[in-house]
Amino acid sequence: MPHIVLNSAKPGIRGLLLYRPETARPLSELTEVLLRGPNTLTRGERELIAAYVSALNDCRYCSSSHSACAAAQLPGGMALVEQVRADPATAPISAKLKALLTIASAVGHSGRAVTAEHVARACATGATDTEIHDTVLIAAAFCMFNRYVDGLATIAPEDPALYAAGAQRLVLQGYLPPAPAPSREG
Amino acid sequence: MPHIVLNSAKPGIRGLLLYRPETARPLSELTEVLLRGPNTLTRGERELIAAYVSALNDCRYCSSSHSACAAAQLPGGMALVEQVRADPATAPISAKLKALLTIASAVGHSGRAVTAEHVARACATGATDTEIHDTVLIAAAFCMFNRYVDGLATIAPEDPALYAAGAQRLVLQGYLPPAPAPSREG
Repeated sequence: MPHIVLNSAKPGIRGLLLYRPETARPLSELTEVLLRGPNTLTRGERELIAAYVSALNDCRYCSSSHSACAAAQLPGGMALVEQVRADPATAPISAKLKALLTIASAVGHSGRAVTAEHVARACATGATDTEIHDTVLIAAAFCMFNRYVDGLATIAPEDPALYAAGAQRLVLQGYLPPAPAPSREG
Repeated sequence: MPHIVLNSAKPGIRGLLLYRPETARPLSELTEVLLRGPNTLTRGERELIAAYVSALNDCRYCSSSHSACAAAQLPGGMALVEQVRADPATAPISAKLKALLTIASAVGHSGRAVTAEHVARACATGATDTEIHDTVLIAAAFCMFNRYVDGLATIAPEDPALYAAGAQRLVLQGYLPPAPAPSREG
């Protein structure tokens, strides 16, 4: 049961976004830019970083939701996502993505845990400065979202089918709230 | 030295906001709403929560910057901020603010560390659901900002006078980027 009385029965962050529209707007815009905006990292790769950090933070809602979004947008599907969550080092992903996930894992621990060696290793695999920047910010943002969702004890459904359905919607429509319906007189 | 090549010599998050305007916009809007938007918590109290969490996360830039902003907007000034950072339990602040800082500290650890007892204690001091929501989100957001700033090894000046000057600017102008100057032909 959530720690506060929400104005809907929506699970996870969805209930929080409906509760406080003032903060929902910048939070949704941040997620849209980070996970779906123009980028040399694919949308699937960025969702994978979000899912990986959320799993390290033990946040069931966010890790389930973003694992489903990653699975829907990566050729390897959920099998690949589960391999990465279990051990990125042995998963069949690029050396660059492995190096970026190492940085993301360090960020989850503390900003100060990211070393010059981590960054040099990522650069050696071809990662650009912007990709390193975005990896750090995605990982940091999910350290926020995970704490927001669990810090208020929001509901996290168990059924994977719910997250898969949510992912289909997010892949099609993105993270921004739908535009208001046009007025009948408009 | 920052881990990536930035396009300015600005310290802390200021350099990162200039580097990536696409993410700077929602990040700045989030900060403005959380720390300065309409709220039953004063701006000084919200800056104090941000400073306290940033200090727990050992982020020199954010803790110095938001301590200066809190000091500029709280009657007790920097002496009070330092007492709170050292030990909120014995600092001369309201029971409500103490209970909210306890929640913020738990959030810094993990979302799952916030207990129903923490929340009940805050409610018993008069904290509203929205104040509890905002405290959790401010603390979570600074777990992001701290990791962003330190994960990219941005520069954190040591001189307190620089942070005090920055606070004066933030108190007057807020966190949103200045509107572009009107064109001469406009």
